[in-house]
Amino acid sequence: VSETTTIGQYLIDRLLALGARHVFGVPGDFVLAYYKHLTDSELRVVNMADEQGAGFAADAYARVNGIGAVCITYGVGSLKVINTTAQAHAEKSPVVVICGGPGVRERTRERKLHHKVGTFDSQLKIFKEITVASAILDDAETAQAEIDRVLFACLRERLPVYLELPRDMVNATFTVRPVHAPKETSDPETLREALEEIARMVAGAKKPVILAGEELHRFEVHDLLPGLLERSGIPCASTTLSKSVIDEAHPLYLGVYEGALGNDAVRHYVETSDCVLVLGANLSDVTLGIDTAQLETARMVHATSDHLNVRRARYERIVFKELILALEPALGTRPRPTIPNPHRPEPWIANADAQITVARLFQCLNWHLTPDTVVITDVGDCFFAATDLFVEHSGFVACAYYLSLGFSVPGSLGLMMARPHLRPLVITGDGAFQMTGMELTSILRTGDRLAPIVVILDNEGYGTERPMIDGEFNDIHPWRYAEIPAVLGAGKGWVVRTEADLDRALAGAEANLDSYSIIDVKIARGDISAGLERLTSHLGKRARG
Amino acid sequence: VSETTTIGQYLIDRLLALGARHVFGVPGDFVLAYYKHLTDSELRVVNMADEQGAGFAADAYARVNGIGAVCITYGVGSLKVINTTAQAHAEKSPVVVICGGPGVRERTRERKLHHKVGTFDSQLKIFKEITVASAILDDAETAQAEIDRVLFACLRERLPVYLELPRDMVNATFTVRPVHAPKETSDPETLREALEEIARMVAGAKKPVILAGEELHRFEVHDLLPGLLERSGIPCASTTLSKSVIDEAHPLYLGVYEGALGNDAVRHYVETSDCVLVLGANLSDVTLGIDTAQLETARMVHATSDHLNVRRARYERIVFKELILALEPALGTRPRPTIPNPHRPEPWIANADAQITVARLFQCLNWHLTPDTVVITDVGDCFFAATDLFVEHSGFVACAYYLSLGFSVPGSLGLMMARPHLRPLVITGDGAFQMTGMELTSILRTGDRLAPIVVILDNEGYGTERPMIDGEFNDIHPWRYAEIPAVLGAGKGWVVRTEADLDRALAGAEANLDSYSIIDVKIARGDISAGLERLTSHLGKRARG
Repeated sequence: VSETTTIGQYLIDRLLALGARHVFGVPGDFVLAYYKHLTDSELRVVNMADEQGAGFAADAYARVNGIGAVCITYGVGSLKVINTTAQAHAEKSPVVVICGGPGVRERTRERKLHHKVGTFDSQLKIFKEITVASAILDDAETAQAEIDRVLFACLRERLPVYLELPRDMVNATFTVRPVHAPKETSDPETLREALEEIARMVAGAKKPVILAGEELHRFEVHDLLPGLLERSGIPCASTTLSKSVIDEAHPLYLGVYEGALGNDAVRHYVETSDCVLVLGANLSDVTLGIDTAQLETARMVHATSDHLNVRRARYERIVFKELILALEPALGTRPRPTIPNPHRPEPWIANADAQITVARLFQCLNWHLTPDTVVITDVGDCFFAATDLFVEHSGFVACAYYLSLGFSVPGSLGLMMARPHLRPLVITGDGAFQMTGMELTSILRTGDRLAPIVVILDNEGYGTERPMIDGEFNDIHPWRYAEIPAVLGAGKGWVVRTEADLDRALAGAEANLDSYSIIDVKIARGDISAGLERLTSHLGKRARG
Repeated sequence: VSETTTIGQYLIDRLLALGARHVFGVPGDFVLAYYKHLTDSELRVVNMADEQGAGFAADAYARVNGIGAVCITYGVGSLKVINTTAQAHAEKSPVVVICGGPGVRERTRERKLHHKVGTFDSQLKIFKEITVASAILDDAETAQAEIDRVLFACLRERLPVYLELPRDMVNATFTVRPVHAPKETSDPETLREALEEIARMVAGAKKPVILAGEELHRFEVHDLLPGLLERSGIPCASTTLSKSVIDEAHPLYLGVYEGALGNDAVRHYVETSDCVLVLGANLSDVTLGIDTAQLETARMVHATSDHLNVRRARYERIVFKELILALEPALGTRPRPTIPNPHRPEPWIANADAQITVARLFQCLNWHLTPDTVVITDVGDCFFAATDLFVEHSGFVACAYYLSLGFSVPGSLGLMMARPHLRPLVITGDGAFQMTGMELTSILRTGDRLAPIVVILDNEGYGTERPMIDGEFNDIHPWRYAEIPAVLGAGKGWVVRTEADLDRALAGAEANLDSYSIIDVKIARGDISAGLERLTSHLGKRARG
């Protein structure tokens, strides 16, 4: 039996089939009819105050859910999510951008339509630079093939994609053909040969180590990691971008590796290893500790979804997930080595009148992490300090490579939709908060009584830049963040100057289960985390040329 | 004598020479050294909370100043100004986007650098779609020629441009050559012939009319308009995008023409004319009243910076500004006709206990306009209602074609820098305000005691969309906007429910000369302006397909 459907409905059905349950967005006239259609579907539409917020929320959602979607209008909407889509691309987050566009019948000439810039192809060309696949769904005959092609590319590469739906095509009908998920397989001989090479390298190594990257999580094979470590006896480190890819209490977990910018014990272990298995980590300047990492190609296996290199040999046609699934035999077994583990948090006892410091703030937050917490940090010292948190049960989400300020508050809404049983601990700087923090309004707008705890490191400016080059441009106008509930008509706020204040604020926030809590932590200028101090001394040298 | 300079300094010198006095921006590490350089120059750097705000401010500034600039960092900064640059492109605003990028020496391979997406060319390709000229200043030998080429294109076309400055090229030196502004001239024979055709058409017309567009203002020839009307005896209308191109008290001014969506008397006059001279107006769907305009090519002259059409004849190689300067003789003289003029505002007398309505709000605002006011409206009913304001002395700024929400508050800061003697009346909807309204923080951050008056039409959602297709997605979370001063630690707020409240609020705001004023006007759902009612009934039919 053949089934007839519409382009709009088919897209909804496919998103649901692939695991999306929510769409983040802002309505606008070119997308309005489809927006209504979405709200009437099984997908839940989560409305945001600004498209930038919707893009960030969809990205965070996609990272933990496996696929996410943002739906916006033409031009004024879609061009506001360029940066968030670029972030998703840089950090491999499978976000489907759905843009409602002018009707096909409106595109016959290069008309000057509102919300339009350049030609009717301009947006597509822009999105081609930051997505892995894209299409304008302007033909009912090809719509299914195009939607399938684009969505499969999204999942195959875990990268963002762009679908433009002309408003007069939403209800265009076609007959559904069976969906054939393209079967992605490695070339078996290449895979076998590569595994043999890896086995040989590992067998000959005295001190192998795994650098476990974000792609293990993105391709949903991170659950294999504990078993892999335990059977092989090989320990692992994570990167700043992959932190929480493994429970940090695991006895074979070393900590976060980031060259000279991270923990010295982790650095020493990794850099003295004679066989580093980099699994699913994209090695960026940040991951490599601003190029301070000492990792020699001659003792490295580097596997990502893009390529497999065993030392200098490159293997093509290997599917990353298959490689990871087949890796266990290649690693053999060996006795568990003695390794440095991350420090468990020390019990927090407030020194009541002591002024709060970055170090003590994070010691306290660390003590407060529970199995129900998911940590999301913004960019700045909030991130650098947070890399030292001991993330035992909970997740840790950060845009640790692309480093775009303003991700955390809207991102937390994405996390709460994807993982409603987890409570976000949002850690942000004041500069990042002033960009997108008022998306707290969207958290209230859901009507779900969501209760994230937002901690603001309030040092009156761009604390990450001060140690590089300082000037008045790093001084932002101070807000009374704890007064935001007066504007939003809901939420609770605290100002923290001392350790006793912090105790009171966290106790209050933890008891506030009905709305967001906002904790304004007054940090002295110049009080920065050890990690940031190391980083900015490196970056500052570069910025000064 | 030959003078040596650096790329960074040359760009500053040229911006100053071409009339820029301010640069709007947000610092970030790839641009940090140059940002410091800018703050130490004669240019004033105006720091914004988010790059989106900086882009909007630079656009508003460029519209009234003749050139504007925004300076941001790579990726996370530049990709946040794609939408604002697209707006500048759509509405012809000469904004120079200056992006600090990775050093040339960092670009040798396709390295994974933070803030980077795609290849080192990706950003340039994206900006090429929304700018008229662009360059990466990666070579000291060609830097002067490239900067000159790009900046002259910006001014010639009054369109945005993109300059990417690798951080290791800021101090690269070269010997300055004399700057030759390319002399743009029309082909004299073509210009003469076209003017003869126009003269013939006008001479044979019984009821000629001018539709005066935004390009008269952009190319700084709007001051010629009153003389042109007075000597020719031909009246003019403006478009929604060009409103205030002429003092609306001028006896030969008809009002805003926008097809069936605007004033009926203006429509009747324009559409019964036997010779419509469209001067510098880009005819978009919005300008044409969502395609309700009845303008026949056979009785039209259409001159823009892009082309000159006299009826169906097209003339190439004509410089718009030269055409306008040469137009007067072609128009001849005739007795002034009797025309309908816009209504002067009626004296405002509050009906104290009456609930405030959109119509009465604008009647009151109209009465309060002074020679020191500049009106900037956002997108929504704030705009449609504001097109009926009687703008006698003051300016009127709106993104009336591209229609991107969130322009007005950051845009007002751009206006205040360009025209410090004018006081902005910012008219915005609540939906637009929730996107960028917190850029009030940047207005405070200047330290200039700037005092814009922000009026929010607070109808709890997207009032422009409700009449098209309504749903919960049009309901935004209500803010207590008048409490924002509690968060920002400065400013004054009022809530307005009745006409007496409005009197009190405006009196208070006008007396508040030290900081921003925010007036939260509670508008009943469904209370929309006459213009919006006409518009949405048209758009709604389309949105529903």
